Amino acid sequence: MQNFNYYNPVNVIFGKDTIKEITNLIPLDSKILMTYGGGSIKRNGVYDQVIKALANHNVVEFEGIEPNPTYETCMKAVEVAKKENIDFLLSVGGGSVLDGTKFIAAAAKLETENAWDTIMGVEGVAKFPVLKETLPIGCIITLPATGSEMNCGSVITKKATAEKIPFMSALNFPKFSIIDPETTFSLPKKQVINGIIDTYIHVIEQYVTYDVDTPLQDRQSEAILRTLVEEADKILSDPPQYNARANFFWCATQALNGTIQSGVVQDWCVHMIGHELTAFYGMDHGASLAVVLPEMWRKMKSAKTQKLLQYGSRVFDVNESDEEKAVELIIARTEEFFKHIGFSTKLKNYGIDAKEAAEKVSARFAERKTVLGENMDVTPEVVKEILLNC
Amino acid sequence: MQNFNYYNPVNVIFGKDTIKEITNLIPLDSKILMTYGGGSIKRNGVYDQVIKALANHNVVEFEGIEPNPTYETCMKAVEVAKKENIDFLLSVGGGSVLDGTKFIAAAAKLETENAWDTIMGVEGVAKFPVLKETLPIGCIITLPATGSEMNCGSVITKKATAEKIPFMSALNFPKFSIIDPETTFSLPKKQVINGIIDTYIHVIEQYVTYDVDTPLQDRQSEAILRTLVEEADKILSDPPQYNARANFFWCATQALNGTIQSGVVQDWCVHMIGHELTAFYGMDHGASLAVVLPEMWRKMKSAKTQKLLQYGSRVFDVNESDEEKAVELIIARTEEFFKHIGFSTKLKNYGIDAKEAAEKVSARFAERKTVLGENMDVTPEVVKEILLNC
Repeated sequence: MQNFNYYNPVNVIFGKDTIKEITNLIPLDSKILMTYGGGSIKRNGVYDQVIKALANHNVVEFEGIEPNPTYETCMKAVEVAKKENIDFLLSVGGGSVLDGTKFIAAAAKLETENAWDTIMGVEGVAKFPVLKETLPIGCIITLPATGSEMNCGSVITKKATAEKIPFMSALNFPKFSIIDPETTFSLPKKQVINGIIDTYIHVIEQYVTYDVDTPLQDRQSEAILRTLVEEADKILSDPPQYNARANFFWCATQALNGTIQSGVVQDWCVHMIGHELTAFYGMDHGASLAVVLPEMWRKMKSAKTQKLLQYGSRVFDVNESDEEKAVELIIARTEEFFKHIGFSTKLKNYGIDAKEAAEKVSARFAERKTVLGENMDVTPEVVKEILLNC
Repeated sequence: MQNFNYYNPVNVIFGKDTIKEITNLIPLDSKILMTYGGGSIKRNGVYDQVIKALANHNVVEFEGIEPNPTYETCMKAVEVAKKENIDFLLSVGGGSVLDGTKFIAAAAKLETENAWDTIMGVEGVAKFPVLKETLPIGCIITLPATGSEMNCGSVITKKATAEKIPFMSALNFPKFSIIDPETTFSLPKKQVINGIIDTYIHVIEQYVTYDVDTPLQDRQSEAILRTLVEEADKILSDPPQYNARANFFWCATQALNGTIQSGVVQDWCVHMIGHELTAFYGMDHGASLAVVLPEMWRKMKSAKTQKLLQYGSRVFDVNESDEEKAVELIIARTEEFFKHIGFSTKLKNYGIDAKEAAEKVSARFAERKTVLGENMDVTPEVVKEILLNC
């Protein structure tokens, strides 16, 4: 096992009818900026619950944080936060709203005109900016997917340059996150399946690498994967079932709260390639992951064989004795699962030309000198080969 | 799934050669009370590492917190803390030292002469005292067992009345916990096997109850149990193996940090009965649990059948189709595991008369009107029947 640091001070309030608890979670003398997206919270009743719970608080609203939240939109919110002397941010919505709010929390405390460079840098890989202060964030999370409700990470897109980049700061853990699974009942199916695959691949990126003797973390990862596979049909059932949605939400939160990454070797190359597909083509995050993972595995399987075999055996009960056949079977079973919940795993079915995507993404990585993967061997050239097969 | 609140702000620093990090974790202007046990930290080098790391800090020492830490000893440390104007407690040792230190942290901020009544009450079940302030605690934990390094609970024994009672306060989470698996290398085998069984039964008490549709938490519990079963021989190997000890320690921490209890129904009746065996007979905590669990299951199996079958199948691969036979087989496999690592599961082998113990413990529960178990049906009469079979 590798040395690690685990720190996660988020106060999670999970369950039915819990939104009302914000009344006591946010100090009465705070001036709150309530951030949200395109108005879905107005249609599903969440907005009304929040406004009712904050009847005696001072609330300013900022509407319009988009999926794959942009720097450009966040900076408008920063302007409001500064002008209104906001001292508490309340994110109401999915992971995009929360990721955007984390950027706002950081940028609102900076003097610079160019918050992007200070916070995100230009490397194109996860950045840990040195921040001195951020605005405190509270969160009502309504979409199981990013895990942002229980971590200090955020992914922001710069429209002007079509860049999508993650950053992390320990100052950006939400003070509290309220998870009421009933808020997911009004989600379009597409968002639910995106969330399933996002969660699934968050786990894969921390688990299917190489073994450093971490049997507990492995089994904790497999616990999430197997739960997603077994619960998928119930998660997608119509009408929605409370327990299935609750189990799914807790899987999404646990997948990226630091637990399964403790002491292990991580990858994240599927996410980094997927981010570029979203940045260049506006592809759904979930779909981009579903497309990249199988071909990444086919390309990199020799370094991942041991973990792939363990994964296949424990998640899909694949116990084929021929290793090569087993690995192909396990990748196929994974693709079948993605298709079963509603994803194509080919770029062409999303109207994207694989050859063009391969050129564009690998050229960008080459320009940034980005090399990915747990063994740092996914060079821009390897990325090109992977995407050509997608 | 049931509604729940998960909050755990402990900063965990895990791995080789991490003790030195206390230099920067404790403010230089603090006046530290360093609490420890019987001097084993002086023999294994931990004491020297701490003193070296705190060369520029102001440190007062309090030696002599015993296994099953007593109120009487803790109050002596409280006297020192008050007299010396201590503002930071550093617990160096196992869960007993840390549990004692948590009591000291609470009592040092009380005006009353009778800290026991204020903090512990007289109910004999877990108490959540209303504390306004506690001293901050940092922790170097050297024994994988109680999980105290990542929770806010503590169990204290009052010698005068032979009572052993848990209490919890959110103010008592350690600010940081340093877990260096190498500190376990000098532990006597008896303490290691006590830790294995303590961890194992912490999980069991949160898992083998009744189903409320929590597939992820179930698999997270099974992950710890299966890891302990599979790693046990390596954990007990001589000379000690780093990874096995690291995996064991992380199991112990994860078993009682709130993760697997989120949203589930808990039991804790084995611990409550075991505590009395320790209070009356000075029995090792681990041994008391090993003795009580099998007979508790035999008595309460009808309410636990579904979870017992799931546990047996996923932890021991027991897939006997006759339910009654399967349950007995699963209990037997559990006893075999306890015996394999070095425990007898019979009171007589610890020099204790089962009939007398049954009378004494059930009389105390009757006097306190204590009823235990996830269905609140383990009455003093049932406790007597269980202990008669132990």
